[in-house]
Amino acid sequence: MLTLEQIHAAKRRISSYIYETPIIRLNGLDHLLGCHVYIKAENMQKTNSFKLRGALNKMLAMPFEQLEQGVVAASSGNHGKGVAYAAKLLNSKATIVLPDSAPSVKVDGIRALGAEVVQCKLAERHVVTEKLSRDYGYFNIHPYDDYDIMAGQGTAGLEIVAQLPDVDTIVVPMGGGGLISGMATAVKSIAPHINIIGVEPAVVSRYSKSLEAGERLLLPEQKSLADALRTLQPGERNFPIVQQLVDKVVSVDEALIQRGMKTLLSEGKIIAEPSSSIGIGAALQGSLPIRKNEKVCFLISGGNVGLETLI
Amino acid sequence: MLTLEQIHAAKRRISSYIYETPIIRLNGLDHLLGCHVYIKAENMQKTNSFKLRGALNKMLAMPFEQLEQGVVAASSGNHGKGVAYAAKLLNSKATIVLPDSAPSVKVDGIRALGAEVVQCKLAERHVVTEKLSRDYGYFNIHPYDDYDIMAGQGTAGLEIVAQLPDVDTIVVPMGGGGLISGMATAVKSIAPHINIIGVEPAVVSRYSKSLEAGERLLLPEQKSLADALRTLQPGERNFPIVQQLVDKVVSVDEALIQRGMKTLLSEGKIIAEPSSSIGIGAALQGSLPIRKNEKVCFLISGGNVGLETLI
Repeated sequence: MLTLEQIHAAKRRISSYIYETPIIRLNGLDHLLGCHVYIKAENMQKTNSFKLRGALNKMLAMPFEQLEQGVVAASSGNHGKGVAYAAKLLNSKATIVLPDSAPSVKVDGIRALGAEVVQCKLAERHVVTEKLSRDYGYFNIHPYDDYDIMAGQGTAGLEIVAQLPDVDTIVVPMGGGGLISGMATAVKSIAPHINIIGVEPAVVSRYSKSLEAGERLLLPEQKSLADALRTLQPGERNFPIVQQLVDKVVSVDEALIQRGMKTLLSEGKIIAEPSSSIGIGAALQGSLPIRKNEKVCFLISGGNVGLETLI
Repeated sequence: MLTLEQIHAAKRRISSYIYETPIIRLNGLDHLLGCHVYIKAENMQKTNSFKLRGALNKMLAMPFEQLEQGVVAASSGNHGKGVAYAAKLLNSKATIVLPDSAPSVKVDGIRALGAEVVQCKLAERHVVTEKLSRDYGYFNIHPYDDYDIMAGQGTAGLEIVAQLPDVDTIVVPMGGGGLISGMATAVKSIAPHINIIGVEPAVVSRYSKSLEAGERLLLPEQKSLADALRTLQPGERNFPIVQQLVDKVVSVDEALIQRGMKTLLSEGKIIAEPSSSIGIGAALQGSLPIRKNEKVCFLISGGNVGLETLI
């Protein structure tokens, strides 16, 4: 179970180490997306993604002896960068397991923080991580299927409700479901009338399909521009929270993910990862259940993107 | 003379047509710039620059008969885009005189608004504009040397003081001086303790040199990455206002202008023109008289930049 109190505790634990990122009103996007557009700019967070919130909450709560033995984390990049940052801060040693396909900007960012990088096939990353944990005694910090991680990510939800109390809808990118389960718990506990909409790539729509099936389906591996959202199965602890609290999950086509990123760039003047722009893509696709006068806050999850990807 | 009342009148005239652009806290830049960093994001303004404020104020105050005869404006691009937008809004016809060197993103943006574009050498643009005005009866809308234009630009200063009342210093890019003379008049009238610092390219430091000489010097034409700040001489009506109200003018080297843009891009996740990032460059150069705990607001004047320039 994840509770509001755990998320408040996470906030107390991590708030002096992270930024309260701004909510930015993007007037110029209103006519394109059909609502009053706001973004929660976690691309401007330390390590340039929200993932630092969960990683710090987990590692600040860990016994010192465990930190001393080192940590290992499977990641598409951003969770790894968060864990690497937290490890550096707390004098631990981090090993990050990334898919071969991880963008170089993420691999380099993790190495620059002093962490070791191991690369393998996407589908094998959790197996490789568990082996490293067994062989070397590293503590395995799961990217999403963990209540401390979810509680950390949920602090972004607390901030949105405080910064923009009259928000109507919050749109959240989904991979394994760590961010949305934390955020939905935070937001629905405080203001149940706020809609929480999840967005995932249509090519790996593990939540849409699993929600329909009523169980956690494992999908085949697919390429997606949204490199941070390629997780193949909903998290065990995340799935029931999403079932209970998320109002709708929307799948977004690859072309619209790219259009979302370009729109945010050219009209919004904001740089975000393709995985972060997926909510904008969902709105452009006409798939969000929003009305014209609604205040809609798009969580921009990360900004770790090479400029070559933007063009 | 420019007065606070004229700027308030401009605000009443234009406010339903423009965006109140956000002030964005950029925590990630604090350690690089040595202050608490905020930006006033006029790159997110309609037409993607502050210039719309002045153009709209001028044209909304003009007699209908003059608008009907059409308008002409010399511009490096952004003023022209503002005039073109206002002309479209008010059913006038705009002809914009641009230097041969204007970035294609600006030329295309102006044409897309239905205005006619005439290109000539940078130094000849005011002569060409005056000839077009004489030959066709077009009203000449000067980019900076005009109190209505200054009053319009000054509305950005009113907004900053309202949005961030405890700001210590505001950093403003300078070309002819239209923006800074409007902003300094607004800000110093309301809160004289707020420092106003102007920044200009070192290769065309027309204000630094003119302030030292005590008269408006005409500098030779130079190339600069800051394509919007290549004006060769301070405006006649702007110069005395800058002499009286601006606390300091700083010159920024080309390499630092570029570094400013790249820093805003990679660390701030914000897309701005080189001319807009010049204030960030000044801070990186160590040339701003600011202290570590000061709240410094950098006016980001425009976002009309091709992605190819960013790389």
